[in-house]
Amino acid sequence: MKIIKTIKKMQLFSENLRLREKTIAFVPTMGYFHEGHLSLMKKAKSVADCVVASIYVNPAQFGPQEDFSKYPRDLDRDLKMAKSVNVDVIFYPQDRDMYPENYQTYVDVEKVTQNLCGVSRPAHFRGVTTVCNKLFNIVKPHIAVFGKKDFQQYVTIQRMVEDLNMDLQIIGFPTVREKDGLAMSSRNKYLSEEERLSALSLFDSLQLAQRLYSQGERKSSVMIKKVQKKINNVPFTAVDYVKICDTKTLTDVSQINKKSVLALAVKVGKTRLIDNYVFGEELKI
Amino acid sequence: MKIIKTIKKMQLFSENLRLREKTIAFVPTMGYFHEGHLSLMKKAKSVADCVVASIYVNPAQFGPQEDFSKYPRDLDRDLKMAKSVNVDVIFYPQDRDMYPENYQTYVDVEKVTQNLCGVSRPAHFRGVTTVCNKLFNIVKPHIAVFGKKDFQQYVTIQRMVEDLNMDLQIIGFPTVREKDGLAMSSRNKYLSEEERLSALSLFDSLQLAQRLYSQGERKSSVMIKKVQKKINNVPFTAVDYVKICDTKTLTDVSQINKKSVLALAVKVGKTRLIDNYVFGEELKI
Repeated sequence: MKIIKTIKKMQLFSENLRLREKTIAFVPTMGYFHEGHLSLMKKAKSVADCVVASIYVNPAQFGPQEDFSKYPRDLDRDLKMAKSVNVDVIFYPQDRDMYPENYQTYVDVEKVTQNLCGVSRPAHFRGVTTVCNKLFNIVKPHIAVFGKKDFQQYVTIQRMVEDLNMDLQIIGFPTVREKDGLAMSSRNKYLSEEERLSALSLFDSLQLAQRLYSQGERKSSVMIKKVQKKINNVPFTAVDYVKICDTKTLTDVSQINKKSVLALAVKVGKTRLIDNYVFGEELKI
Repeated sequence: MKIIKTIKKMQLFSENLRLREKTIAFVPTMGYFHEGHLSLMKKAKSVADCVVASIYVNPAQFGPQEDFSKYPRDLDRDLKMAKSVNVDVIFYPQDRDMYPENYQTYVDVEKVTQNLCGVSRPAHFRGVTTVCNKLFNIVKPHIAVFGKKDFQQYVTIQRMVEDLNMDLQIIGFPTVREKDGLAMSSRNKYLSEEERLSALSLFDSLQLAQRLYSQGERKSSVMIKKVQKKINNVPFTAVDYVKICDTKTLTDVSQINKKSVLALAVKVGKTRLIDNYVFGEELKI
């Protein structure tokens, strides 16, 4: 496994691969890998000749009161895990190269970033789209793989790629879960033992939504109230939002159908967790 | 000369060229060619295997009160002129493909777009950077050539390409002028005979600046006053701005040196014209 640290070397490496007609699949990450990340890398490996994963905790996507400085980092562990799933290249850039002095260019996807996490994290998606735009230009992939746990991020990146005519394919990969259903996230590490139990309320409430849907419930207002109640009944939880949206536009819908997603963000203690369920799909552990 | 009208076909064409290790030089234009455009195309031809020029009057870079609908267009004439300088491909996209329904992604270069034309045309550069970002992703050039008549545009595009790590080189080409010194512009067509005479005041004032600089004048305030006075003495003119800025940051400077540019925008009748002079360089006709 090759480790590339400079932008120029990464571009040169990818350009040479492309000239040799090799395909590149890319998994952008903030590191501190878990099974979710590894699944994206395995998926990438199955669709391209060469897998590049980036490890970069992107300061531009954290708000001033958020967890940028304490976000978990462990490069050695990440390298071992990436190697175990046959990643070909780790791109590991530095802040001073990604955002040098006088840096001033940002990519905004305007509509799909307004709702859901965009409300409580107003600059988050601008940071995500900007860094992904940069990473796509550096890694030059044919395919990039994103986890659907971050559903709004996945929709936003798709929108950016389509709008800006970036010539690559975005693949969304289903959420990977712990044995009890909690969506894998590097931030789960923040949870105390008690909070970890309470965090299950996110998955429980998605299961409730799936059950209500299969029983014929189609009214968003009814569904949302029941989901909120289920979470509120659990200690240490504070709902940021529970919404039902169109899967493409991410605007609220009043009637649920197969193009609807229930998305939620819940603070468990001090840790903000997100999860989602696309109606008609099967919630898998 | 090939004419390509769809985004997918253009990307495929360029991708195939790149796989054959051919280099692509790109000249983005809004059409209605003059000698300035042709010079950019000739320059492009001299640095790459294949020259692609785009013709697209980009609605996103015009303000609501500006001349989008009356901007001069003449495709047949443009095609003949492009052929005469051996352009290989004309990319001629449609609005519905460039900005389809639900389009929502924009690229902002924040600092260098604030001063100069950014003051009276607040959304202009956002439109320019967005469309150039798209066109670069569609045409996939190794090199893109821009005229330095639009100095702020040239600096802004350079900034975007560097910040977003777009793997292409931007070349700035010197302003091409009419025999009497007026900078070539598709908008010169709007000028009446009398206004055409008054429009010379832009070049005259740049010559004055060059003369004052060679005589040792280094104070921006003094230089600006004299240039403004020269333009104001001419009928039909209304100065939008006369400024002296750093050539990289485009912020105002009080002391002039070889990294300074005098930039001006003047309304002649209803037509807004721009021009500029980088101190220490030679003003050429």
